[in-house]
Amino acid sequence: MTASQTSRLREKLAEIADVTAAIALLQWDQEIYMPPKAAPGRGKQLATLSALAHRMSTDPQLGELLHRLRDAIESLEADDAKLVEEALYDYDRAARLPEAFVHTFAEVRSNALQAWVKAREESCFAAFQPHLERLVALLIEKADYLGYEGSPYNALLEDYERGMTAGHLQTLFADLAPKQRALVEKLGCAPQPDAAWLDQTWDEKAQWDFSLCVLRDMGYDLEAGRQDKSAHPFTTNFDFTDVRITTRINPADLFSGLMASIHEGGHALYEQGFQEKDRRSTLAQAPSLGAHESQSRMWENLVGRSLPFWKHYMSALRGHFPDQLDRVEPEQVWRALNRVRPSLIRVEADECTYNLHIVLRFEIEVALIERQVKVADIPDIWNAKMKQYLGLDVPDDARGCLQDVHWSHGAMGYFPTYALGNLYAAQLFEQILRDIPHLWDSVASGDFAPLLAWLREHVHQHGRRKTAARIVQDATGSPPSSTPFLRYLETKYTALYDLTY
Amino acid sequence: MTASQTSRLREKLAEIADVTAAIALLQWDQEIYMPPKAAPGRGKQLATLSALAHRMSTDPQLGELLHRLRDAIESLEADDAKLVEEALYDYDRAARLPEAFVHTFAEVRSNALQAWVKAREESCFAAFQPHLERLVALLIEKADYLGYEGSPYNALLEDYERGMTAGHLQTLFADLAPKQRALVEKLGCAPQPDAAWLDQTWDEKAQWDFSLCVLRDMGYDLEAGRQDKSAHPFTTNFDFTDVRITTRINPADLFSGLMASIHEGGHALYEQGFQEKDRRSTLAQAPSLGAHESQSRMWENLVGRSLPFWKHYMSALRGHFPDQLDRVEPEQVWRALNRVRPSLIRVEADECTYNLHIVLRFEIEVALIERQVKVADIPDIWNAKMKQYLGLDVPDDARGCLQDVHWSHGAMGYFPTYALGNLYAAQLFEQILRDIPHLWDSVASGDFAPLLAWLREHVHQHGRRKTAARIVQDATGSPPSSTPFLRYLETKYTALYDLTY
Repeated sequence: MTASQTSRLREKLAEIADVTAAIALLQWDQEIYMPPKAAPGRGKQLATLSALAHRMSTDPQLGELLHRLRDAIESLEADDAKLVEEALYDYDRAARLPEAFVHTFAEVRSNALQAWVKAREESCFAAFQPHLERLVALLIEKADYLGYEGSPYNALLEDYERGMTAGHLQTLFADLAPKQRALVEKLGCAPQPDAAWLDQTWDEKAQWDFSLCVLRDMGYDLEAGRQDKSAHPFTTNFDFTDVRITTRINPADLFSGLMASIHEGGHALYEQGFQEKDRRSTLAQAPSLGAHESQSRMWENLVGRSLPFWKHYMSALRGHFPDQLDRVEPEQVWRALNRVRPSLIRVEADECTYNLHIVLRFEIEVALIERQVKVADIPDIWNAKMKQYLGLDVPDDARGCLQDVHWSHGAMGYFPTYALGNLYAAQLFEQILRDIPHLWDSVASGDFAPLLAWLREHVHQHGRRKTAARIVQDATGSPPSSTPFLRYLETKYTALYDLTY
Repeated sequence: MTASQTSRLREKLAEIADVTAAIALLQWDQEIYMPPKAAPGRGKQLATLSALAHRMSTDPQLGELLHRLRDAIESLEADDAKLVEEALYDYDRAARLPEAFVHTFAEVRSNALQAWVKAREESCFAAFQPHLERLVALLIEKADYLGYEGSPYNALLEDYERGMTAGHLQTLFADLAPKQRALVEKLGCAPQPDAAWLDQTWDEKAQWDFSLCVLRDMGYDLEAGRQDKSAHPFTTNFDFTDVRITTRINPADLFSGLMASIHEGGHALYEQGFQEKDRRSTLAQAPSLGAHESQSRMWENLVGRSLPFWKHYMSALRGHFPDQLDRVEPEQVWRALNRVRPSLIRVEADECTYNLHIVLRFEIEVALIERQVKVADIPDIWNAKMKQYLGLDVPDDARGCLQDVHWSHGAMGYFPTYALGNLYAAQLFEQILRDIPHLWDSVASGDFAPLLAWLREHVHQHGRRKTAARIVQDATGSPPSSTPFLRYLETKYTALYDLTY
C-alpha cells in the first residue's frame, strides 16, 4: 500500500514538474523570442499557469498523501523518504500562499519585466517605479503569509537559500566587505596590466562560435540544451534533458559574452547532472541558489579566469580572431581578464569587487522589505552606496539601479546567494585541488573531465538530498566559511599584481 | 445575475485559452528550438498540459454554467449568445473524450513527431510505422467516442471543417480531379516557360530578408508575431498579439521559402485580425481550417503568383540578388512561378496539381479510418496513387508518404481543408475584384491595404461567429462552389500558356 502511495506521490509531483516546465518555457520565450505586443497576453498566461501550479502544489489530497507517507516514513526506502520530506517542505510553504496572491504576483511580475526592459532602454527609473512599488508591497505581503522570525526579509531569503537569515548575512558581509575593499584599494595603487589590445571590435559570430566550443569542452551536452541571446544571461531548464542557457555578445568586449557563457554553463552542468531516477521529481533540484552559484562561479572565475585555462585556449581563440590576436600571449589574456577595476555593472565586476555590488543590493532590499526606505528613493540610495563601496559616480539609472533583471522578476533575497556562491566555490575548489593533484595540468590540456567527475560525485548527483552547507561540509570536512575565498583572492591577486604582503 | 454568469464564463474560457497557449508554445518550441534529447520529457509535458486543458474544458461546472446560460440565451447580448453557443459546442464535443484518452493521445503524438523527423531524414517509413499504427488506432477510437453518421472519418473531419462529410468530399473531388487532370495534360503538351535562370544557388540570408519585406508589406505585424525556420512551415498563435509563422529556406530554390512565408503570412493575417473584445475567448478563432486556408492560398497563389505582384516586387528582388537577376523581367518570374509540373512534394505543387495531392491523401485516410487498408500498406498505396493521379514514380518515402508532418500530429481529416481553401479563395477573390475594381493597380504598386481591409471586414473580424460557408455566402451571395476555382484556373493558365480553348 505504501508503494502505491509513493507512486501516486511521484505521479502528482511529476505533473507539477510538467506545469512548472511550461511556465519556465513561457518565461524563456518571453525574454528571447516573444514579440513585444504579446507582453500583456503572456502575463495572463503566466498568471493562469502559475495559479494552476500553485493549486496543484497545495492540493489538499497531495497534503493528505504526504502526511500519511510521513507517518510511515520509517518504512520507506531512503530515496522515497527524502522525497516525502522535501515535498512536504514545499507543500507546507506553498500552502501558506493564497491562490489569488500567486495569480496576482505572476501577472504583476510579467508586466514589470516588460516595463523594466523599456525603462532600462530609456534609462528611466520612473517608468519602472510603479511596477516595483507594487512588487515590493506584494513581497512584504508574501513574507507575512510565509511567516518569519526577526526580519521579514528572512521569509524571502528562505526561498533562495534555505536556513539563511539577514542577520547571518550582515555578520558575514561585515567581515568580507572591508577586507575586499582594502584589497581593491591596495591593487588600485599597483601598476595595472596593459589591456589596450582589447580595445577593438570583436566579431560577434566568432565570439558566439568560440563560446560554444568552450561549452562543449566543459561537458555541456548541447543535445540536451542550447544557447540563445537575451538581455540578461540566464539558465533555465524544463527537465534535465533540456537545460538552456543564454548569453549576450558585446562586439566591444571580447570576454564578457564568453564569461557569461561559461558562468551559465556551470549552472547548466549542475542541472544536467541530476540522476535519471530523480527525473520530474522534487529531488532533481539544487538545494539552494548559493549551491547553484558555486558551480557557475567556479567555472567562470576559478577555472575560466585561470592561467592554465588560457594556456590551452589561446590557440583556439587566435583561430577565431587571427588578425587581432597573433601577438597576444596567454599571460596577457589572464592578466587582462583579472584586472581589478571598480565598475558600475555587477555582471562585469571582477572577483575582488563583486561582493561589494551584492552588499549594496542586499542593504537596499532589506531596507525596502523592512519598510525603512521607499522605492522612489532607490536611485539616490543606490548612487550613494555605489560611491561609498566602489568610489564610483552613477551616470544614469541604466548603469545604476536598472541594470539587473531580478527585481522585475519579484526576486528579493536572491542577490546574496551570488556572494555565498563565491564562498562555496572557493572552499570546494581548495578541496578539489587536494583531491585531484594534477587538476591544473588537465585544465591546461583542455581536459575538464576530472573536474566535472568530482562535481558530479560531490555536488550534482545529490540534487536536493543535501543542503548547500551539508554538501560543503561533506566534501571539505568543514562548514561553509569565508576564509578560503579571502585566501583565494589574496593568493591569486598577489601573483597577478606582483604584490608583497 | 446573467451578467455575472457570462463574466464567469469568460474567465473560465480565458483560462482554457491560456493553457492552450502554453501547449502551443511547447509545440512551437518542439519543432524549432528544442534540443533532441528533450523529446521524451516534452512528450510528458504536453500530455500533462493537454490533460489539464481537457479537464478544464470538460469541467462539469463549466457545463452547468453553459447550460444555464443557454436556457437564458434570449436575454443575452448577441456576442454573449454566440459565445455561449460556440463554447457549448466545444464543451459537448470535448466531454465525449475521456481524460485518459486525451493524455495518451498527446504523448503518442509527441513521440510520433520525433520519430517522423528521424524517419523522414532517413527516408524509412518502417521507423515511423509503429507510431502511425498507434495513432490510427487512437483516431478510430476517437471517432467512436465522438460519434458519427456514415463514415467514422466524418467524426474526424468535423474537427477541421464543421459540417463536412467524406461523402460530400468524394462528390466534390469526383468533379474536380478529372477536370484538373485534363487541364494538366493539356498544359503538358504546350510549350513550357523557360526557367533555366532559376537553376542557381540563392543566398539564404537574402531570401530570408526579402520574405520579411513582403510579409511587412502584406500587413503582417511583426511586433505581434515573428518568423522562424522549421522542417515544415506552419503558423501558430498564443493570442492574437503573438501570431508566429515558420518557413524553410532552400538555397537551390529562390521561391519555395518565399511562397511558404506568404502562405503562412496569409494565415497570420487572419489570426491578427480578430477583435479585441474576443480576446482569450472561443470567438477569437477561425470557424474552420478551410476558411483559414482560403486566406493563406489567396495570398500565396492569387496574389503572390500574379503578374501585378511581380511588377511591383521585381526591383526589390533584384536588390537582394543583383548579380543574378539583373536581366530577369517580371513576366519571366510570373511564368516560372506558375509552371505546371506534376511533382512529388505537395507543398511545392502548383495550383493545377495541388488538389490531386489532396485527393490521394484523402483516399488513404478514409481507407485507414474505415479499416480497409493497413498502415504497413501506405507506401505501396501512396506510390500507386501518385502514378495514377500525377504520373510520377516515387523514389523514396521521404519524397513520398513521409513528406508531411500532419499524420505525426495525429491529424487526419485535415488535408481536405487545403482543397476547400482553394475553392473558397477563388470564390472570395472573384467578389473582391468586383468590389475593388482597382485592386490589381494597387497590388502593382505594392499597396495591399485595400485587400486586407476587405478581408478584415468580410472574413477576419467575425472569428467563429460565422461558418466558412456563411462567410462565403454573405460575401459573395452564393454558397461555396467549385466553379469559380475551375474558372480561375482556366483563365489564368490559358493566358500563361497561350492556349486556345
